[in-house]
Amino acid sequence: MPNYIEPIEKLIRQFTKLPGVGSKTAQRYALTVLSMSEEEAQAFANAVVEAKNNVHVCSVCGNYTDTDPCRICSTRDGSVICVVQEAKDVLAVERIGEYKGVYHVLGGVLNPLKGIGRDDLRLSELFARLTGDVKEVILATDTSAEGEATATYIARFVKQCGIKVTRLAQGISIGSELQYADEVTLSRAFLNRKEI
Amino acid sequence: MPNYIEPIEKLIRQFTKLPGVGSKTAQRYALTVLSMSEEEAQAFANAVVEAKNNVHVCSVCGNYTDTDPCRICSTRDGSVICVVQEAKDVLAVERIGEYKGVYHVLGGVLNPLKGIGRDDLRLSELFARLTGDVKEVILATDTSAEGEATATYIARFVKQCGIKVTRLAQGISIGSELQYADEVTLSRAFLNRKEI
Repeated sequence: MPNYIEPIEKLIRQFTKLPGVGSKTAQRYALTVLSMSEEEAQAFANAVVEAKNNVHVCSVCGNYTDTDPCRICSTRDGSVICVVQEAKDVLAVERIGEYKGVYHVLGGVLNPLKGIGRDDLRLSELFARLTGDVKEVILATDTSAEGEATATYIARFVKQCGIKVTRLAQGISIGSELQYADEVTLSRAFLNRKEI
Repeated sequence: MPNYIEPIEKLIRQFTKLPGVGSKTAQRYALTVLSMSEEEAQAFANAVVEAKNNVHVCSVCGNYTDTDPCRICSTRDGSVICVVQEAKDVLAVERIGEYKGVYHVLGGVLNPLKGIGRDDLRLSELFARLTGDVKEVILATDTSAEGEATATYIARFVKQCGIKVTRLAQGISIGSELQYADEVTLSRAFLNRKEI
């Protein structure tokens, strides 16, 4: 017996599919499942299947939803669209509780090195939403090189439509110490300094 | 929408039951499941249920098995019993590929502070195995205070049965630097020094 018996090995292999989970961690997870009661393990398995079956992508904004269009698209101010990379970024913005507009989830960013081009993102869906009702597009992609490039690409198109386009402010994080700020952030903060 | 929709929240809650998984990690895992194909998610769920349904505890040694007695108990030399804390420790010993005897999984160690006493471990099952055929009991519990105390407790009983009892050697790990060895390990290594 060089390894665990087949049912455990199978479960370990499944757990290694999760991001950042190696064989040691997967092993711990599998042994935790084995120590659960039968009901608990069944509830775990059901949650996986139910989430997969009941959660869909909103046909308008691309966010995860169990209705279509999603609750945000159907109840909120459609004149402001916040463009984000991933569904989890929607949650990050929602958490501040101040934004009242709708979202557009791209499903990634342009990344030629990884072969992710315009057609791999929900860009045409975004551009199709830019009708007369839209007053502002907020670009909230990551501040990585790819996120910036994607924002620039979208901004060019949105401007051509005569719609206001904004980018989230970049600078020093609140509560962080100046000495630990990286060079790029600090130079960006200097560039964007405001008169007070 | 202060949080994710219900099916996703439910899945996140399930993932937080795994050891060392907080809400952020659980969120990442849940979104990974959502990005799987339906077949993959189903396979994941099946692996959980199948592992739970098909894996049992060997009635002899307490290791996880899908047969009873397990393959190790039914095919290997029963005259040497290696006593370990958890099923995963069996795998650790199996990995060296040299041990040809059988195992006994305690399911933990004596820990009065956590209320784990003699009856919570598979101790009576171990003592019941100490028939005339057994020639040696190897104590391979952890070197924690609780692991040592448990080993001492078992050793006393096994000796009374007139059976040889051994403990895994303790000292400096192979490949480690002396300067980084902790005091207890180093003092134990001095105590157990061998003439060469």
